[in-house]
Amino acid sequence: MAGSTLGTMFKVSTWGESHGKGIGVVVDGCPAGLTISEEYIQTYLNRRKPGQTKYSTPRKEDDYVEILSGVFEGRTTGTPISMVVMNQTQRSSDYSEIANYYRPGHADYTYDSKYGFRDYRGGGRSSGRETTARVAAGAIALAILDSLNIHVSAYTRSIGPITIDYTNLNLQNIMQSSLYMPDLNASAKAEDFLLEKMNESNSVGGVIECVVTGMPAGIGEPVFEKLDANLAKAVMSVGAVKGFEIGDGFKSASMLGDANNDAFHYEDGTLSKETNHAGGILGGMSDGSNIILRAAIKPTASIARTQHTVNKANKNIEINIKGRHDPIIVPRAVVVIESMVALTLVDLLLQNMASRLDKIQEFYKN
Amino acid sequence: MAGSTLGTMFKVSTWGESHGKGIGVVVDGCPAGLTISEEYIQTYLNRRKPGQTKYSTPRKEDDYVEILSGVFEGRTTGTPISMVVMNQTQRSSDYSEIANYYRPGHADYTYDSKYGFRDYRGGGRSSGRETTARVAAGAIALAILDSLNIHVSAYTRSIGPITIDYTNLNLQNIMQSSLYMPDLNASAKAEDFLLEKMNESNSVGGVIECVVTGMPAGIGEPVFEKLDANLAKAVMSVGAVKGFEIGDGFKSASMLGDANNDAFHYEDGTLSKETNHAGGILGGMSDGSNIILRAAIKPTASIARTQHTVNKANKNIEINIKGRHDPIIVPRAVVVIESMVALTLVDLLLQNMASRLDKIQEFYKN
Amino acid sequence: MAGSTLGTMFKVSTWGESHGKGIGVVVDGCPAGLTISEEYIQTYLNRRKPGQTKYSTPRKEDDYVEILSGVFEGRTTGTPISMVVMNQTQRSSDYSEIANYYRPGHADYTYDSKYGFRDYRGGGRSSGRETTARVAAGAIALAILDSLNIHVSAYTRSIGPITIDYTNLNLQNIMQSSLYMPDLNASAKAEDFLLEKMNESNSVGGVIECVVTGMPAGIGEPVFEKLDANLAKAVMSVGAVKGFEIGDGFKSASMLGDANNDAFHYEDGTLSKETNHAGGILGGMSDGSNIILRAAIKPTASIARTQHTVNKANKNIEINIKGRHDPIIVPRAVVVIESMVALTLVDLLLQNMASRLDKIQEFYKN
Amino acid sequence: MAGSTLGTMFKVSTWGESHGKGIGVVVDGCPAGLTISEEYIQTYLNRRKPGQTKYSTPRKEDDYVEILSGVFEGRTTGTPISMVVMNQTQRSSDYSEIANYYRPGHADYTYDSKYGFRDYRGGGRSSGRETTARVAAGAIALAILDSLNIHVSAYTRSIGPITIDYTNLNLQNIMQSSLYMPDLNASAKAEDFLLEKMNESNSVGGVIECVVTGMPAGIGEPVFEKLDANLAKAVMSVGAVKGFEIGDGFKSASMLGDANNDAFHYEDGTLSKETNHAGGILGGMSDGSNIILRAAIKPTASIARTQHTVNKANKNIEINIKGRHDPIIVPRAVVVIESMVALTLVDLLLQNMASRLDKIQEFYKN
Repeated sequence: MAGSTLGTMFKVSTWGESHGKGIGVVVDGCPAGLTISEEYIQTYLNRRKPGQTKYSTPRKEDDYVEILSGVFEGRTTGTPISMVVMNQTQRSSDYSEIANYYRPGHADYTYDSKYGFRDYRGGGRSSGRETTARVAAGAIALAILDSLNIHVSAYTRSIGPITIDYTNLNLQNIMQSSLYMPDLNASAKAEDFLLEKMNESNSVGGVIECVVTGMPAGIGEPVFEKLDANLAKAVMSVGAVKGFEIGDGFKSASMLGDANNDAFHYEDGTLSKETNHAGGILGGMSDGSNIILRAAIKPTASIARTQHTVNKANKNIEINIKGRHDPIIVPRAVVVIESMVALTLVDLLLQNMASRLDKIQEFYKN
Repeated sequence: MAGSTLGTMFKVSTWGESHGKGIGVVVDGCPAGLTISEEYIQTYLNRRKPGQTKYSTPRKEDDYVEILSGVFEGRTTGTPISMVVMNQTQRSSDYSEIANYYRPGHADYTYDSKYGFRDYRGGGRSSGRETTARVAAGAIALAILDSLNIHVSAYTRSIGPITIDYTNLNLQNIMQSSLYMPDLNASAKAEDFLLEKMNESNSVGGVIECVVTGMPAGIGEPVFEKLDANLAKAVMSVGAVKGFEIGDGFKSASMLGDANNDAFHYEDGTLSKETNHAGGILGGMSDGSNIILRAAIKPTASIARTQHTVNKANKNIEINIKGRHDPIIVPRAVVVIESMVALTLVDLLLQNMASRLDKIQEFYKN
Repeated sequence: MAGSTLGTMFKVSTWGESHGKGIGVVVDGCPAGLTISEEYIQTYLNRRKPGQTKYSTPRKEDDYVEILSGVFEGRTTGTPISMVVMNQTQRSSDYSEIANYYRPGHADYTYDSKYGFRDYRGGGRSSGRETTARVAAGAIALAILDSLNIHVSAYTRSIGPITIDYTNLNLQNIMQSSLYMPDLNASAKAEDFLLEKMNESNSVGGVIECVVTGMPAGIGEPVFEKLDANLAKAVMSVGAVKGFEIGDGFKSASMLGDANNDAFHYEDGTLSKETNHAGGILGGMSDGSNIILRAAIKPTASIARTQHTVNKANKNIEINIKGRHDPIIVPRAVVVIESMVALTLVDLLLQNMASRLDKIQEFYKN
Repeated sequence: MAGSTLGTMFKVSTWGESHGKGIGVVVDGCPAGLTISEEYIQTYLNRRKPGQTKYSTPRKEDDYVEILSGVFEGRTTGTPISMVVMNQTQRSSDYSEIANYYRPGHADYTYDSKYGFRDYRGGGRSSGRETTARVAAGAIALAILDSLNIHVSAYTRSIGPITIDYTNLNLQNIMQSSLYMPDLNASAKAEDFLLEKMNESNSVGGVIECVVTGMPAGIGEPVFEKLDANLAKAVMSVGAVKGFEIGDGFKSASMLGDANNDAFHYEDGTLSKETNHAGGILGGMSDGSNIILRAAIKPTASIARTQHTVNKANKNIEINIKGRHDPIIVPRAVVVIESMVALTLVDLLLQNMASRLDKIQEFYKN
């Protein structure tokens, strides 16, 4: 069935395969009057682009986004915004070998199980390259949030065993670190660790953390469309993500009630919480404090080591995946997680406008 | 906006407040021809019912389910199945006090922020009592899965610091343990821990694990409607859940690629994996091995200890929540998680039927 | 698949069969703060109730609506509103005969084709009795519209060959006519015609017209979610409706462009149209003038005349449907059409709130 | 809100403005294994292309479709199919004048009302040019139907006052008539009528009829997702459509019950109906006989005659729309209606697969 569309009010539909003609996205439901440009979208795509540092694949991907519709005289018109990144080079030949077996940790086998065959070139639709389209859409969502004074910042929390020290955390550092770690000390250690594992032809995982500031209280719809439930779905829909947490997450499972509850406090005309174990969400709705979430990313599945697998003729074989691949997905996925969070927030902010009759009456009075 | 409906093909809509006239659910899209009865649904509700053991609230809730539509001569007709559990007693008076302040860890403040006021009786719509409706719907989903030889088993993995030992794990034990722990040794220790914390008027969290056997490969829709993304949303939509993992989850973030990849293997006419770090899902689709997931549950928010909070007049106050509450949510939530997993699987199994033209042609040939 | 839910923001899910335990509806996404009561809903149900005049079935249906959730202290809370009309009497025995053959003009054959069997008692789910639930939900939508000064009036335009004369049209007359015709002259003639056909054991069709006043301009979403497209779907989803028109409808197909276009005009601070051939909708959005639509209703399928059909053993048989049935559906369907229009308008009014960034910014500033 | 997506299982999202960079569509949920090519899609686009006859605008639109994703080695892969028709020339200058006033019968005023401003070039998003994208998607739906032996044929039933004579109707003639009328006699008369009105700088409307053969019984979901309700929405979403009928449609409103009911008949192993007043749909589901529907198309709104309207400065003005426009929309809309019908049928055929447990069990047994 159709699975490439996200959102209800703010609807994002991606398309494209790794080695097809291009990757694209249609954003439908974007409010009219938002200023955007190809240059603005491009700055987000550049954060995801490979070949930026020695920790990402040296494959050259010159991803230039083109806006094909929905923007007139620099502003969104309220109609669908179609964006496309054409593939510069389509080299299918390199992938003839992997057409015949199932790479461990990849979606080759499951695509074949579902559809009977697959576009095997570079992973086809299951390639991380699909996230280019998500980032282009995410840039639009982030611009909307920005206009509402809501800010989303994702960064690398840990790489393998190396975790940031929150006393060293400085969000200004994110862009200084080639691994997008806001603790430059930890970043340096993580680089060493990563180089060591790269030299062993192995790959590494990590955790991405994301903080949202400025969210008004009451966003998210009770029961099944809770804010945290929607964030979980959006984040878990990113390829290599294996876990999701909000606030204290799994740690809260071993906490006691008196330590886990966040006391409310009123001062200087503002209600706030003394702590934020809940990660900014109570009963599935934002509570006005910062939203904090984490995503666990598994190590890259493609490694240049001998692995066991099965080919399409049902033979047990040994393989050695050629080509150079990212030894870690985490840094490039940071902007993807940021995008997924932004897309979710915008959708729920728009849904929330219909919650109260008095506000609806006021809206239609003007 | 409307947030009380889950699913696309198999659509579940719950309604009702803790202390209203009743709690109910409409299941639309249930295939025709399934044998169900009120007695069958009731067995699932009984697993969620309070007052069963000393670790749950002694409140008496005689939850009897009634099927109002969609079943004729013992079988589902394909039309909506409406089920209701009427509340036996509606005592609003007990809750007059909490009407005026925001309980820490609860949704009081966020409901007021969103809607301008709230049904404060027993938590209203945000009460865990709403999950009664999910379990009734889940029982139907579990019956469909059973008819397809797919089985879902949830159990308590940990209570506070006490975790089951997988060498002692025996799924037959789940029902022997009053905490639904499949390791009776751990269960006994957890009971002691729980009693100790209850005596200190505190509350405890834990982790629920769920295993699915018999899933065919290829279920789940690529990109945004991945199986794991949908499971995450469904599980995170349960009140006190703060984290979700699939397979090795957060642990995989600190693993190396060669250890995290599951090798494929072919033997005796069957393709399988040598390990299952992925938890049965690759590229967002089931891979034919067991699906394994976990949910982190925070400690019960209602505790009989003095807490700081704010009242509706914006005064900082001290409160002490009266009444006796579950010292732990985990055991009663086990069947809720099982239900949410089942609802998600059925929806995606039905969606998957439209994936291949040859199978559609075969379907309509008969 | 699930087909009993209508709407995106304002979501209505009906359930129940003609001779089951009851009929009900869950309204999810109703804004908080609307004043409603069972008495208010009941006034709408009474307009649909049979046995009111000699032109409707003398079957006694004492339909009393009960609100089970979503209303607290007389106001909607923003959470699902569950309403139920329990069936007073469940007499299945009367329907044993029709279990075995397919009534012409009814859904017996198509239900069996789809589901393999059917609840044959009184038409089961396909019975017009399901519209009780729509009217209960419609009453809520009409209350919301009323609070926004938008008014929906449906009435009988024609019965068989007798059509109202617009020079005699007076909306105040609707309730004076037992056929809900706003031209009492035509109403009297239609009554005569109807009695004549009743005496011949035949049945009669007609056309219902609906006028909406007070709609702001710009409601409806371009392309597939146009206002007229959604109205068409909602109206055509009512059992016996075979045609739908907006404005001049089919007549416009034989008009010339200069006669069909409505000129815009500005006077006294207001932009309006000199004519309204378009029926208040341009490009799928309301244009600020009255919305006018029509639904063609076929004659009642159940008639006490000998008819040819086929039984479940594939024998060609002659049947004579027992019991007394409405000789015409039109008058009782008037409030159903009004309800379907109201449900559609509310959903699109809520969707429209997210159209412009400046208005969203203003909304979240307060 | 997002309104440019149609369908649940088979999801079609169009984008693009008349004078933007291009028009496109993403088809998500297309079953894997369907053979399609750009050449095949192009044959459908050619039927919609202007400049084919003297009755359509002489504007040259060289619409070449390009498939950007979702097809591998000539077959659909199950992932989104992105198709684009780039605009060859983007001449905005011609449209500077209409930027400042509201054309009667067009969506200029309603777009401004909704979004605050509009892309005025050639009607922007509201242009009939958007239907190019629908036809490209429709071609895929028609190929799926073809593989299931279901055939959809739309044609012109009437042009102004000239209606086809059903005794002369021959579906083979459709392509012989430059107006797509299956009665060549009527076609010749309609051509004369059209030329006459063109010379008077006026425009003409008409009725399109569509017949579907080969539909299995039981397709369509009861209550709100009825087959006829979905067809109505899909057809009414096409720009100039003002009315929709199924079977006898508005005529049935003046028929008597005994004449309107279709008797069932069994012969030679097949159940059929003696007549088809119902147009192939009973209770919202296909009944196995031909589906027959009609759409009323208003005369083209753009005419080269003096018209009254209002400009953006709220002045009453006289205008005379320049450029040459189609004097009639009907012939070019025939393939659009065919497409909308096909898209709806495919979506409901796929949804229907989940109706019965025994068929689901059989599906998953293999």
